[in-house]
Amino acid sequence: MKSIEVCLSPDLIGQYDLRGKSTVIVDILRATSCFTSGIANGVSEIVPVADVEDCRLMRDKGYLLAGERGGELIDGFDMGNSPFDYLQSSMKGKRVAATTTNGTKAIHLSAESDEILIGSFLNLSAVAEYLKDRDRVMVFCAGWKGKVNLEDSLFAGALIRELQGVHQPIDDSGLICRSSYVTVREQLYDVISKSEHARRLSGYNMARDIEFCSRLNEFNIVPQVRNGSITPS
Amino acid sequence: MKSIEVCLSPDLIGQYDLRGKSTVIVDILRATSCFTSGIANGVSEIVPVADVEDCRLMRDKGYLLAGERGGELIDGFDMGNSPFDYLQSSMKGKRVAATTTNGTKAIHLSAESDEILIGSFLNLSAVAEYLKDRDRVMVFCAGWKGKVNLEDSLFAGALIRELQGVHQPIDDSGLICRSSYVTVREQLYDVISKSEHARRLSGYNMARDIEFCSRLNEFNIVPQVRNGSITPS
Repeated sequence: MKSIEVCLSPDLIGQYDLRGKSTVIVDILRATSCFTSGIANGVSEIVPVADVEDCRLMRDKGYLLAGERGGELIDGFDMGNSPFDYLQSSMKGKRVAATTTNGTKAIHLSAESDEILIGSFLNLSAVAEYLKDRDRVMVFCAGWKGKVNLEDSLFAGALIRELQGVHQPIDDSGLICRSSYVTVREQLYDVISKSEHARRLSGYNMARDIEFCSRLNEFNIVPQVRNGSITPS
Repeated sequence: MKSIEVCLSPDLIGQYDLRGKSTVIVDILRATSCFTSGIANGVSEIVPVADVEDCRLMRDKGYLLAGERGGELIDGFDMGNSPFDYLQSSMKGKRVAATTTNGTKAIHLSAESDEILIGSFLNLSAVAEYLKDRDRVMVFCAGWKGKVNLEDSLFAGALIRELQGVHQPIDDSGLICRSSYVTVREQLYDVISKSEHARRLSGYNMARDIEFCSRLNEFNIVPQVRNGSITPS
């Protein structure tokens, strides 16, 4: 049987050996939901960058700058961290440099993996389908400042359910995520709305983003990370 | 509303401020199940010790020595790590020094808490009842070598359910544990039998231990940790 395991936080990744594995990076609110939306919408490349000032330097290389701090657009940036920003028709063919602390950290910490994929509820089935012939899968939840978070772990549980009969969860984190997802899967939006992250970033636009990020299978694509850059697979 | 939160691994405890909190140490297989059983059976004091050789030094101070390595009794020790060892009638009034790596680490890392309690399924309701007038509760899962484990997180979910309406889970780990527990609560023994820990330590006696450690409310006591020593509350 093929295997699937779950790392619930970047602070725990040292416990895992990523060599030979296909790693799925998950940061549901909102980095990997944005990246999935952007690539599905025809964005040609997205470069995740941890630091705002490093991101700013990407403008001279022809990148649009994406980012928010405290829910506000960053001065001099072109767009925010909403998936709707990535879904504008004007984005087709564009290259984007996006600030995201947790997502960037998870991507850097996955370097030893055989391949790195971008996962979100928006492309859940596409990711599962892609992984069916891969022997060893790692779901890497980006969390928030090292803390375990609800929405990323629910995605892990959802992916384990999708791969049932093909991949066996081999660590307890996977079992926890699977049973947690089973309880709340009919009410994903409601439950994610009560997560720590959602409570931190409340407000009208955020509610719209959370509703969108909780949707299943809007897009049939699997973005890949190669050399720190996200492109279509 | 009073609060409850869950730390899923000693490797994550640095994210939490334990001051002013009542911390419940959980190491279902089998340290805190043993300690609960022993104190319920009249053992007067249990000292958890990480290292086998440090434990051995406790004999001269009048302690019985408890411990296993690889499922075998340790040479020169009086008893193993089974709750049934702690339930022998000959244990009444005795003092025990017990080797437990994960449990001892969690206890040491909880030193800043207002108080430290020992939790297991065996005394779930007693712990919940005790905590009802405490404002801030931390459930500290001992895990296994830093890894998140299933049985400790299920206890956290069970305790959150018991305290429903009194304590609100304020972190996502608590929400994950609660929904995970809801799915599997009717089949605790079966589910815990499939955990990583149970698979590591299989065999006849271990199955009996797991069955016992999965039972709810066998004992109406709340052991406390004071100065590194576990005694009745």
